[in-house]
Amino acid sequence: MNPPDAPALKGFESFTAGDGGSLGTVEITAADVVAFASDWDPQPFHLDAEAGRASPLGGHAASGWHTASLLMRLLATNLLKGVKSMGSPGVRDLKWLRPVLVGDTLEATFAVLAVRPSATRTDRGYVDASFQMTNQHGEPVFAMTTTIIVGR
Amino acid sequence: MNPPDAPALKGFESFTAGDGGSLGTVEITAADVVAFASDWDPQPFHLDAEAGRASPLGGHAASGWHTASLLMRLLATNLLKGVKSMGSPGVRDLKWLRPVLVGDTLEATFAVLAVRPSATRTDRGYVDASFQMTNQHGEPVFAMTTTIIVGR
Repeated sequence: MNPPDAPALKGFESFTAGDGGSLGTVEITAADVVAFASDWDPQPFHLDAEAGRASPLGGHAASGWHTASLLMRLLATNLLKGVKSMGSPGVRDLKWLRPVLVGDTLEATFAVLAVRPSATRTDRGYVDASFQMTNQHGEPVFAMTTTIIVGR
Repeated sequence: MNPPDAPALKGFESFTAGDGGSLGTVEITAADVVAFASDWDPQPFHLDAEAGRASPLGGHAASGWHTASLLMRLLATNLLKGVKSMGSPGVRDLKWLRPVLVGDTLEATFAVLAVRPSATRTDRGYVDASFQMTNQHGEPVFAMTTTIIVGR
């Protein structure tokens, strides 16, 4: 139970198709790239700057799952924290559009595509949304479309 | 440059549609679920066992990105380590089919769907593959289809 003075969480009905905006920015550091890769994706072009430069990625590149996790952190912290989130059934069309390199600064944005009340469960609805991350050159590096289940 | 006695990495031509098998197993611990969630997906049902049990997920549930990262680690360690991997353009149809709960043991499997030489770049080909994670009850909890770029 929330304490009496906690702000109420936003429910499904507070979302509208066309909503959207920035979820914030994040800098890509060598230490973070190596730490994530060591834990989850130990391929040479993620673990080592020289191996990255010698690879088709053209530089010391973050794991694609690191980029996805960075987006999730911005989404959880800057949007879902105030929302009755009930999870997600999955992601369609997750795209690693360009390498994410050490030194990049990424901005995450979202756009609500559609809102759909559940046909069978009156306690929830579905928010279809697209997410994008763009680097400091304005180039898209990551995109995905997903559904967030939100309580009513 | 590899040392002279390092085993040669497998190239694109070593993959065939129909290849597949197990990538190994992993146990889901409360400490790992909380650590991943704290770093990347700080939602209450991932951070706290009680909040998880009270949620629609029905227990202390791993972040979906944690499950994806666990699959990536098994893939990198048990398959790509010996392969001329050049990354991936993305994932189609990433599905979180059931909650992954503390205490579960997941097995990852893969199946090669198709192999396609690049039409424009003679140094590489594309390996389309599906991946699945199944829990100790034999229930699928995670699935995705992706393309791995492999050097020739």
